[in-house]
Amino acid sequence: MSGKNITAKQPAGKSSPFLSELTLDCVILGFHEDQLKVLLLRWRGTQEWSLPGGPIRKEESVDQAACRILKERTGLKDIFLQQFQLFGDVERYNRNEIKEKLKHLVEPEKWFERAVSVGYYALVDYPKVAPTPDAFTEECQWWGIDEIPSLLFDHNHLIKIALESLRIQLSWQPIGYKLLPEQFTLPELQRLYETILGRTLDPRNFQRKMLGLGILYRLETRRKGGAHKAPYLYRFNKQHYKAMLTKGSLFFS
Amino acid sequence: MSGKNITAKQPAGKSSPFLSELTLDCVILGFHEDQLKVLLLRWRGTQEWSLPGGPIRKEESVDQAACRILKERTGLKDIFLQQFQLFGDVERYNRNEIKEKLKHLVEPEKWFERAVSVGYYALVDYPKVAPTPDAFTEECQWWGIDEIPSLLFDHNHLIKIALESLRIQLSWQPIGYKLLPEQFTLPELQRLYETILGRTLDPRNFQRKMLGLGILYRLETRRKGGAHKAPYLYRFNKQHYKAMLTKGSLFFS
Repeated sequence: MSGKNITAKQPAGKSSPFLSELTLDCVILGFHEDQLKVLLLRWRGTQEWSLPGGPIRKEESVDQAACRILKERTGLKDIFLQQFQLFGDVERYNRNEIKEKLKHLVEPEKWFERAVSVGYYALVDYPKVAPTPDAFTEECQWWGIDEIPSLLFDHNHLIKIALESLRIQLSWQPIGYKLLPEQFTLPELQRLYETILGRTLDPRNFQRKMLGLGILYRLETRRKGGAHKAPYLYRFNKQHYKAMLTKGSLFFS
Repeated sequence: MSGKNITAKQPAGKSSPFLSELTLDCVILGFHEDQLKVLLLRWRGTQEWSLPGGPIRKEESVDQAACRILKERTGLKDIFLQQFQLFGDVERYNRNEIKEKLKHLVEPEKWFERAVSVGYYALVDYPKVAPTPDAFTEECQWWGIDEIPSLLFDHNHLIKIALESLRIQLSWQPIGYKLLPEQFTLPELQRLYETILGRTLDPRNFQRKMLGLGILYRLETRRKGGAHKAPYLYRFNKQHYKAMLTKGSLFFS
C-alpha cells in the first residue's frame, strides 16, 4: 500500500477513490540459491510480517491494480502474474487481534467492514527486484519458502494455496522461464521443479524428459565453480516452450 | 437472483444486506446425450439469455453464496463447484446497452456502479437438475456448449474461460465422476474427455490409459440398445480416483 492508499482505510463511501469491499494480496516468488523465496513486508514498529497487497482504485481493473502494487514493491514492470483464488470468507482471520496489533498505524474504525481479497502470484527474476516497503511497513525482504514466520491476516494460508495452484499450473504456465535467469543448468531447473512439486525427482528421468521436449538449447559454456564437474548451461527455446504449454506437455506425474 | 435479491440492485449502502461491488456468476455444466451442456436463463419479456448468478450477502462467504444460488437454480445441494476466475475489468461490457435492454425489469440507476464478478463452474449430474428461473427471468434451460447464443453481459467470455480452466483441471479435479452418471461406458467417458479437451482421442490409447490407471471397475452388465455390440458398463473406484488426482495422474498430453 503506497502513501496514498492510507485513505482507502476510511469507511466506504462514494467519495473514496478505492473499492471498499475488495482488496488484493500478492505472493511474489523468486528463485535464488536453489531456493524458492517469497517477498514479505514488516509493519512499522512491529515484528509482524505480511504479504504485499492493497486496495483497488475504482478506475482501474483488478489486474491493473495488481501490476501497480507489484511495480511499487519490486520496481519491475511486465511481471508474470496470475490470479489464483478469491478469499471470500466472512471471518478470514481474527479482526480484533489485527486491529489491536496495528492500532498505532491504523485507527481500528478505519478498517474495511469486510474485505474479500483476490490472491495473485507473481514470478519474478530475483536479482532484478528492488524490494520496497509501503506506507505501513518499514522493511521488505525475501524469505525462503520453508522459513516463513507466522504472518498477519490469513497470509500463511494464502501462500499455501498459491503454491498448490503453482503446482497444478506447472504444466500450463511458463513457470520455468519466468523464475530462472536467462542461462541455467539442468540441476538448477530440476531443483525448481522439485521445490514446486514438493518432492525429489530422479535426475536421469528428469533430464531425459526435459531434453526430449526440445524446449532447451545447450550452450557451449559451463557453470563455473563448484566441486563437481561443471554442468553445461542451457537456455529456453521460448517459442517451443510456449507451444508445449498450450498442450500441457510439461507435465510430471 | 431470487425475489429478495431485487433489493440488491439498489445503490450501495450500509443498509443493503448485500455486497455492492462484488457479484458472482455460475457456469453450471452437465453431460447429456454425449454433449456438454450449460444452464442459461432467459430474462423476462426478452429473448436475451445469461448465466445464472447474483449478489453476495454480507453475512455469507462467497462460496456459500455460490452454493445458495446453485441450489436455487438447480434444486441440488452439495454440488461440486470451483472458482475459476475473477472478472475485474472496469468496463466488462457495454453497460448502456444492458441498461437499455433490461430497463423494463431494472431501473437503470439501480445497477451497481461497478461490479466485479467471480466466476464459478459447477459440475452436476444432469438428470437430477430441476432448472429454475430467478426473479428476473422466466426460463431456465440447458444449452449444448456448441449452440450457445450471444449472451448478456460478458457471459460468452466467462464460459470460454471456464472451459479453458476445466481443461487444465481435468487432471486434478474429479471431473469424470461429477459429470457422468454412476454407470457409464468407455465411449461415454472418452466423449466427455474429448468435449473438454476440444479434440478427438484415439479410442485404443484412451482405453489403455484409463484402464491402466486402475480407477475403473467393469460391471457385468452392458449398455442396452444401440446398433453396435453393446459396450460394457463401468463405474469409478472413487478412492483410487482421488489418489490419482492428488498426483495429477489423469493427465492427457
